[in-house]
Amino acid sequence: MESIRKLVRDIPDFPKKGIIFKDITPVLGDPGAMARITGAFEHELEHLKPTRVVGIESRGFIFGALVAQALNLPFSPVRKPGKLPYEKISVSYTLEYGQGTLEMHTDGLKRGDRVVVLDDLLATGGTAAAAGQLVEKLGATVAAFGFVIELGFLKGRELLGGRKIISLVSY
Amino acid sequence: MESIRKLVRDIPDFPKKGIIFKDITPVLGDPGAMARITGAFEHELEHLKPTRVVGIESRGFIFGALVAQALNLPFSPVRKPGKLPYEKISVSYTLEYGQGTLEMHTDGLKRGDRVVVLDDLLATGGTAAAAGQLVEKLGATVAAFGFVIELGFLKGRELLGGRKIISLVSY
Repeated sequence: MESIRKLVRDIPDFPKKGIIFKDITPVLGDPGAMARITGAFEHELEHLKPTRVVGIESRGFIFGALVAQALNLPFSPVRKPGKLPYEKISVSYTLEYGQGTLEMHTDGLKRGDRVVVLDDLLATGGTAAAAGQLVEKLGATVAAFGFVIELGFLKGRELLGGRKIISLVSY
Repeated sequence: MESIRKLVRDIPDFPKKGIIFKDITPVLGDPGAMARITGAFEHELEHLKPTRVVGIESRGFIFGALVAQALNLPFSPVRKPGKLPYEKISVSYTLEYGQGTLEMHTDGLKRGDRVVVLDDLLATGGTAAAAGQLVEKLGATVAAFGFVIELGFLKGRELLGGRKIISLVSY
């Protein structure tokens, strides 16, 4: 979506020297762009008949909440360690700039759910793959991953094992 | 909103012994409840003629994004330190369980904006007050604070200096 690409801002050397960060705050600040993103995900996802949307903390909460509302589906958060208060499971993984752990409530989805996992950006794929593992550990399946931005040159798709991926802007 | 209150789950001794945490994940998992929350905020806020919605990381992103879309307004994130990549300002404050700092991009709003600040919960008010300070430092005004839950017994309102507060469920 070229109208979205134009809004993404490159920030050199963030969070580390040599990395060009894709800043989506100008996208968030454009309500028309946000509506178009929500509509594009709705259109791409509805025919998969998902039963739940999972958003990955923190920016995935924004797009996850909007897509869940558009599809009239329950939303479940995948969070960083120590944030979720109820009974939960966790997965540790390697991410672009270090190590990470993600958690999900054990009642965050139902066995057999067809889950859409939303985040703002697909980079190396570690975070999304971990979220997918959480979903599958709880007896559900990943109907699709959805990302506003995909950094194709980092080959994150390869970590997601052939599962359906929808990305709206690719680099 | 009693239909929302019924969904909030009490978690004793989280994050510390003696604290009863209000878990909103069952609310997030109910698309009808989320639509009603969004509608209630839309109804309460539209006549204030706000020009922007600010959401506080992380759960404020969920409600902030939905309310921004309902009101067709730009959304700006207030985030924890080190997350925002562009030029920014910060405010430090005391929160319920320790110390905190919040940041906002300097282009996260415009001088004269009438801002709605959204978060899931009003407790002691430290986080919301800090977000309000960020808004005002950038030359905008707080049209209202919006919270799904207000813990009235913690008297967070007193920290928000008489500014308009909308809360949907009070304890």
